[in-house]
Amino acid sequence: MTAAPRTLDLTFSALADPTRRAILLRLMRGEASVNELVEPFHLSQPTISKHLKVLELAGLVERRRDAQFRPCKLKAAPLQEAWRWLGDYQRFWEEAFDRLDAYAKELHRKELHERARGEKSHGSKKPKRR
Amino acid sequence: MTAAPRTLDLTFSALADPTRRAILLRLMRGEASVNELVEPFHLSQPTISKHLKVLELAGLVERRRDAQFRPCKLKAAPLQEAWRWLGDYQRFWEEAFDRLDAYAKELHRKELHERARGEKSHGSKKPKRR
Repeated sequence: MTAAPRTLDLTFSALADPTRRAILLRLMRGEASVNELVEPFHLSQPTISKHLKVLELAGLVERRRDAQFRPCKLKAAPLQEAWRWLGDYQRFWEEAFDRLDAYAKELHRKELHERARGEKSHGSKKPKRR
Repeated sequence: MTAAPRTLDLTFSALADPTRRAILLRLMRGEASVNELVEPFHLSQPTISKHLKVLELAGLVERRRDAQFRPCKLKAAPLQEAWRWLGDYQRFWEEAFDRLDAYAKELHRKELHERARGEKSHGSKKPKRR
């Protein structure tokens, strides 16, 4: 299943704002009304509502029509699509890690080699104490 | 390692555009000059350059200063950070899948039950052939 480009546009765009990411993080713990979201963020109710509209449009938040306080609920499906899209690049960051790992090993090997040479030349000048 | 909020802002913002995602997809296959990127996209060189600047700012693309054609190269580290951030929500889409799976099983169980009842009442009207 591949996400439609438009879906990914809306998802990534919604996630590009720290307040919206914080709202999703809050909704991880369970449903919340707009008022419950306003308090911890120290933002005005219209600002929170504006962010919620962006999240709703991206299908990341759902608001129950029936309940009086219209609680907001996290919808994770678009996050999964975005996660899958990013997962296609996994081999690139793994390659980068492998290169870094190989470089660190090479440095370590050189260091051991230098130390061994140093000990040898040091040893040739001064006889070993014992 | 947690990505700084600013890093995630830039990454998600850069990924919110289909042309920029397509450029990254092209760079998966290897480095490319701006001219090589202009051709398949049927966009003007300034438009591609503008998108590349956004990708560079987000640390998703690196351009070599030394080479004449300044080839663009994919940098996957910010993609990994975004992938990790999204991965924290994994249990939500897995829960949703489990619920869907349970629902499908319940439907199937009901269908079998209905069919068994239908066969029984059908069987009482007509005697079995054979």
